[in-house]
Amino acid sequence: MTTQATTVPAYAAPAADAPLERTTVPRRAVGEHDVLIDIKYAGICHSDIHQARDGWGEGIFPMVPGHEIAGIVTEVGPGVTKFAVGDRVGVGCMVDSCRECDNCKAGLQQYCTGGSVLTYNALDKNGEPTYGGYSTHIVVDEEFTLRIPDGLSLDVAAPLLCAGITTYSPLRHWNAGPGKKVAVVGLGGLGHMAVKLASSMGAEVTVLSQSLRKKDDGLRLGAENYYATSDEATFEALAGTFDLIINTVSAPLPLDRFLGLLRTDGAMVNVGAPEEPVSLNVFSLIGGRRTLAGSGIGGIPETQEMLDFCAEHGLGAEIELIRADQINEAYERVLRSDVRYRFVIDTATI
Amino acid sequence: MTTQATTVPAYAAPAADAPLERTTVPRRAVGEHDVLIDIKYAGICHSDIHQARDGWGEGIFPMVPGHEIAGIVTEVGPGVTKFAVGDRVGVGCMVDSCRECDNCKAGLQQYCTGGSVLTYNALDKNGEPTYGGYSTHIVVDEEFTLRIPDGLSLDVAAPLLCAGITTYSPLRHWNAGPGKKVAVVGLGGLGHMAVKLASSMGAEVTVLSQSLRKKDDGLRLGAENYYATSDEATFEALAGTFDLIINTVSAPLPLDRFLGLLRTDGAMVNVGAPEEPVSLNVFSLIGGRRTLAGSGIGGIPETQEMLDFCAEHGLGAEIELIRADQINEAYERVLRSDVRYRFVIDTATI
Repeated sequence: MTTQATTVPAYAAPAADAPLERTTVPRRAVGEHDVLIDIKYAGICHSDIHQARDGWGEGIFPMVPGHEIAGIVTEVGPGVTKFAVGDRVGVGCMVDSCRECDNCKAGLQQYCTGGSVLTYNALDKNGEPTYGGYSTHIVVDEEFTLRIPDGLSLDVAAPLLCAGITTYSPLRHWNAGPGKKVAVVGLGGLGHMAVKLASSMGAEVTVLSQSLRKKDDGLRLGAENYYATSDEATFEALAGTFDLIINTVSAPLPLDRFLGLLRTDGAMVNVGAPEEPVSLNVFSLIGGRRTLAGSGIGGIPETQEMLDFCAEHGLGAEIELIRADQINEAYERVLRSDVRYRFVIDTATI
Repeated sequence: MTTQATTVPAYAAPAADAPLERTTVPRRAVGEHDVLIDIKYAGICHSDIHQARDGWGEGIFPMVPGHEIAGIVTEVGPGVTKFAVGDRVGVGCMVDSCRECDNCKAGLQQYCTGGSVLTYNALDKNGEPTYGGYSTHIVVDEEFTLRIPDGLSLDVAAPLLCAGITTYSPLRHWNAGPGKKVAVVGLGGLGHMAVKLASSMGAEVTVLSQSLRKKDDGLRLGAENYYATSDEATFEALAGTFDLIINTVSAPLPLDRFLGLLRTDGAMVNVGAPEEPVSLNVFSLIGGRRTLAGSGIGGIPETQEMLDFCAEHGLGAEIELIRADQINEAYERVLRSDVRYRFVIDTATI
């Protein structure tokens, strides 16, 4: 049992805009309800890059990004009941929350009104910085640890902890399923999972991408239709078509045109967000009682449900496995949308 | 039976920006499924002014506004089954629709994808201009004629045909009722009905108005709380409070601040719309899975349901009855928000 805090190898951004480099970071002692996880894989999320480059401001440096974590339990605290040494586990965007507000009690820890603790670039309840998954080990409370079913390989499971749940949650909340037409805007890390998930839920899936460059992939992943949004005709051809649009694109879109693609009572749900405000004409919502909504990751129970769903349907992320010394290069490629569809770090190379 | 088309007295705007004046307009012969209505009262909706002044462009002049109509049936066509001479009836914003699309079949004629025919400033299926309720008579298909229950006076019932249904529909759709906290933004023609309706549905109602000027009215109409949005403290005090915000204000609002007043899964529903685009930060939606939505009037079955609900709960609009020669003055007063809460024209004075 690790009763003492330790330091572990990690890749960190020492400051905003500085390349990530190998270092060590502290991990707390394994507490009563903690598990120590031997991290095997960590996905690279676009928001890692954003935060490492301090795009949202107030970043805590040095910063170890990574909230798509898959590994094996190697120690458990004396009060742990859900996990045992050897278990295959994952950690997503949160490692704690207030646990007392209505949302926490309802399993919606992502909307904790007391303030959930993010996996990195945050302060935990003791005021200590949290460090993410670009590392060899992490200590996490069992309540924020997920079980990765046997049917899922750890490498393709890692991205499910953010890209998977971020798209699964709104698809479920807005009832994607048989008889429903779902559009996915953007075929990147989140988008490719949205296509796989919505299609496995039984919805008819259409990809709306800037170009037709990835069309073959989109159809292979489960989409029935694939349109280019750079083509004016797309917005006419598909007017009033969709029950649900999942927008995975963080760049500002011409929202009125996309809202026009919704059926009556349809919803366009944003899971990414541009930093600048977006604009729309309210008449785009009034016509057809349409909604523009947002959704953030998912709660812990729903994240487990998503992992179980993925195992049942044989869904993992499409990944490109990299060494830790390729992280900075991978960041550049993500910014160029040059990845199909998620970089995953083999943490044995840290 | 009026087998021939007739002309009837009306007040019309001869051109954009010209004052309304007394004139006559044609009414079609009473057809197989038509009723001829002796109009008793016609409400003045803010959108009447907007259209009479060609605020949305492409106005059809001369224009007889008025889509809050209450009167008595004086003739029926041979195929009419729902109404008889002497019945108390109303007409709202629509007088026809395609009747074939999914929305029409579902009773959501307001979202008719074939194009519903508005009560005025529109062309009917024969390409003839429609003329509204500032008139002594109107001929309307029985399918777009509503029954005004005996318990409701015709004068206070007239505004229900637009102001009533426009607020009733989103309150029902978003489940206002016991245990729900509903905010109404703006205490005008629509807002005062929203307060009455939401309160009668059992919701806890809060008015959010620019000032506290109408606070006594708001509380009398059924609100439990009344806050001024000009007071910065309001947005802090009420953060995360409401399940539903009904926004009746057509001027652009600081949407991010209002969205911050919603609870998790809360919805802000716009029933009015500024002509210019609005802007918001998408993060205001992602935090708490909030939605920004729109809602337009209501379908014919729901409009009847609303009238029945109002009769059951003794709800009518708060009105100021005017003569037809006061219409232009009333328009100026509406633009100054100097009306509590709806002008209604006594059409006997036309």
